[in-house]
Amino acid sequence: MTAGDDARYMALALSLGRRGLGHVWPNPAVGCVLVREGRIVGRGTTQTGGRPHAERVALAQAGPAARGATAYVTLEPCAHHGQTPPCADAMVEAGVVRVVTALEDPDPRVSGGGHSRLRAAGVQVETGLCAATAERDQAGFLLRVTRGRPFVTLKLATSFDGRIATATGESRWITGPAARRQVHALRLCHDAVLIGGGTARADDPMLDVRDFGAVRQPVRVVAARQLALNTDGRLARTAGTQPLWLVHGNRAGDLRGGSAATWEALGARLFPVPVGPGGQLAPAELLGALAEAGLTRVFCEGGGALAASLLQAGLVDRLVGFTAGLALGAEGQPALGALGLDTLAEAPRFRLSEARPVGGDVMHVWDRA
Amino acid sequence: MTAGDDARYMALALSLGRRGLGHVWPNPAVGCVLVREGRIVGRGTTQTGGRPHAERVALAQAGPAARGATAYVTLEPCAHHGQTPPCADAMVEAGVVRVVTALEDPDPRVSGGGHSRLRAAGVQVETGLCAATAERDQAGFLLRVTRGRPFVTLKLATSFDGRIATATGESRWITGPAARRQVHALRLCHDAVLIGGGTARADDPMLDVRDFGAVRQPVRVVAARQLALNTDGRLARTAGTQPLWLVHGNRAGDLRGGSAATWEALGARLFPVPVGPGGQLAPAELLGALAEAGLTRVFCEGGGALAASLLQAGLVDRLVGFTAGLALGAEGQPALGALGLDTLAEAPRFRLSEARPVGGDVMHVWDRA
Repeated sequence: MTAGDDARYMALALSLGRRGLGHVWPNPAVGCVLVREGRIVGRGTTQTGGRPHAERVALAQAGPAARGATAYVTLEPCAHHGQTPPCADAMVEAGVVRVVTALEDPDPRVSGGGHSRLRAAGVQVETGLCAATAERDQAGFLLRVTRGRPFVTLKLATSFDGRIATATGESRWITGPAARRQVHALRLCHDAVLIGGGTARADDPMLDVRDFGAVRQPVRVVAARQLALNTDGRLARTAGTQPLWLVHGNRAGDLRGGSAATWEALGARLFPVPVGPGGQLAPAELLGALAEAGLTRVFCEGGGALAASLLQAGLVDRLVGFTAGLALGAEGQPALGALGLDTLAEAPRFRLSEARPVGGDVMHVWDRA
Repeated sequence: MTAGDDARYMALALSLGRRGLGHVWPNPAVGCVLVREGRIVGRGTTQTGGRPHAERVALAQAGPAARGATAYVTLEPCAHHGQTPPCADAMVEAGVVRVVTALEDPDPRVSGGGHSRLRAAGVQVETGLCAATAERDQAGFLLRVTRGRPFVTLKLATSFDGRIATATGESRWITGPAARRQVHALRLCHDAVLIGGGTARADDPMLDVRDFGAVRQPVRVVAARQLALNTDGRLARTAGTQPLWLVHGNRAGDLRGGSAATWEALGARLFPVPVGPGGQLAPAELLGALAEAGLTRVFCEGGGALAASLLQAGLVDRLVGFTAGLALGAEGQPALGALGLDTLAEAPRFRLSEARPVGGDVMHVWDRA
């Protein structure tokens, strides 16, 4: 077994792990590959809902062929007894002789425990292979455990000059069908879609994933300080069948626009959070509440005020832009609200990671610099 | 000689022709390849300043080898006696037996005359090969002759959210060094760089081409209705050594900001044009004056008001966007002024022709839809 083989099998495990993104919260989306004598005998991805874990899936697939195998796992195997016995124990039991992992699990219930449990049982353990890629893939899980907030992707679909609607609010459609389909694919690999109350009122969106054979819909989250949302809209009508979470202000006078009881009766889950000095829901507390409820990856689709408040607070991890070939002019609605910058040096900066045509539009992806 | 050979040689002629863009106005940037018995015996590009023509260059290179050759020319050879005898005659004289062209010359002094002159002399003539590409390459020359205006490329270098400066006007630098270098390359393949008076006042730019071994600088054009420009700025100080053209209002009261005589003394060339109902220089008349003076390709670098007036009038042929990975927020300065649109359907639309990373920024190129 060469170092090149190790890296290749880990790359496969990483790609298996990525399949779980958006479907396994609050658990990490892990991938596992079992290799014996140069032959892959098992592959696993954390299953929808977070269980079984990737290691279990791969072990089950390998059966007796796991004996003597090397396991490539994108995260340290669990060592605590949860709903099932720990994966570290299952590996020992199955006869795995070597375990290569990308990352140590920061979850205090695991943190090093999985690795030491394996070592104690005589299994050879190596860690840190392809760690940078694994950290990028699992950023949502890691941020939730270490910082108490989910990974946040902010999408902006704009005209050539950065506008999201005409002065009169017309916004359908600025980007073309291929870009809109790509947005649905992006929703699918996030645990939740987040929008502001203004966007909910203006667009009356469904926020679901159409196509792609989606088996699990993302949670729909609306940040609406006053709960001033239409109780007869598409979100309200579907609150009983697809999760709808409403984040609102926690002060006595905040709920001038709607009643918590009404929304709970419709099937929504409510999250009262503090309101910041600008009158916006405090962005860190908003994300904290979502992480507390289990979310690891949130896809924010605007509007401009919510996007600006997340950017201003330094809480956006990835920007995904779709730029269309039309101009709307200065009277069009801006993609972002005010950021209160005095100098260029203060502007939130991101690093380009991808740029390519999608249909007739340009997609560009930027990560936190 | 197969059709595939013909297309290959024409593609080479087209690439030779493109080298002249920005350097040959008011002449077309033509390419010519001479092929005899499957061997290239001459290559020509219209030379800086517009003469000698590409055919002359290729014939001179071929010498006696032109006898019996096929000439691939991106535009119909000239048939009128200008400063030199017509290229059609020179080809006949050199013994060229077959001429393949991409386009007929719409210049009324040529228009079909070159082709018929060749045919009359017994030369086999075929035309229309790679016509679409040739029309795209030579759009500036064609628009000037057929519509009396130059080809207009509009550049917008913006933040992720479509802003060109902070609220306080800070704009250096939003894009990175690779994108800025690309802008200089774009200036070089245009006859002129055009900006509005506000941008000239705010940025005090040079508008020259640095690097690339530029032998000919583009004309610098400022659209400044009142001529309210700093007579001690960089444009003024260099007006004697690099062309500076100032377009201003032609009404008695327009020149409140500067004196035509002062600018002429500094070396600038002045173009009085009508002012439109919005108080802006009328964009069609502005471009008409530039075409009248010989310009075929104009590179507009803003500001927002000038860019909006060109877009609104349907006079932008190509958009080149540079998007940087930083956010400036709604209080930043917009890339485009107001367009007065009521609906999305009225928005000027463009078709994506290229999108790729340039350094840490995204470059996207769009052509008139």
